[in-house]
Amino acid sequence: MDKIPILRMGPFLLVTIQIDLYDRLALNLETDLVNMVHKTGARGVLIDISAVSIVDSFMGRILGNIASMTRVLDAETVVVGMQPAVAITLIELGLSLTGVHTALDVERGMALLQSKLDPDEELANDNDNDVE
Amino acid sequence: MDKIPILRMGPFLLVTIQIDLYDRLALNLETDLVNMVHKTGARGVLIDISAVSIVDSFMGRILGNIASMTRVLDAETVVVGMQPAVAITLIELGLSLTGVHTALDVERGMALLQSKLDPDEELANDNDNDVE
Repeated sequence: MDKIPILRMGPFLLVTIQIDLYDRLALNLETDLVNMVHKTGARGVLIDISAVSIVDSFMGRILGNIASMTRVLDAETVVVGMQPAVAITLIELGLSLTGVHTALDVERGMALLQSKLDPDEELANDNDNDVE
Repeated sequence: MDKIPILRMGPFLLVTIQIDLYDRLALNLETDLVNMVHKTGARGVLIDISAVSIVDSFMGRILGNIASMTRVLDAETVVVGMQPAVAITLIELGLSLTGVHTALDVERGMALLQSKLDPDEELANDNDNDVE
């Protein structure tokens, strides 16, 4: 199978990564996602990586690429469901996923995207997640 | 990878099937889903099979099993995103997915589950796609 399905959920797109992202699959995913954002006018992309247990710099770069590509089409990308071990590996590899938003799970990721769509609402309860 | 991730979306669970369901994977999915319904008190399960292009009687039976198992835990199962060729094959194989609800995509599947949670609303638009 060389396509990862992209699900439309209201104004957002959801992708679940379940298999190793080798070169062609990753490039297909980038292209498909950008086309889908263009076609649907989606305002956000959620990438669930809860099934990913091994991460390398290639994966980190792909996630960064996707975030940059969708941002120029006015859609934010949130990576959700990262396993603790993956977070540790990423930082030890020196990859801090610059420009990529992250959230603990799909629900929180969706809330994050929603709050970016309605800045007023965020203003009302913006002392939720701020550590300041 | 021998686990398919189950995503929680409000009162529903979402599973995207992207790889061939061989025996152990299918049994794991059944167990995981039932445990997850029990743990989260989910009221519905959405199974996206838009990436599935080949279907056989085993797959049909697994979907039927999951629907029956979740139903006894008071959660309905909706299979979404079936490709036209898969629908043709299923019927030609004589499998009509008895007891499994279907919908065209995740959004419609979620609307179907929502309407089952709020029967009043269902009365207003009760032309959904039950396959029973």
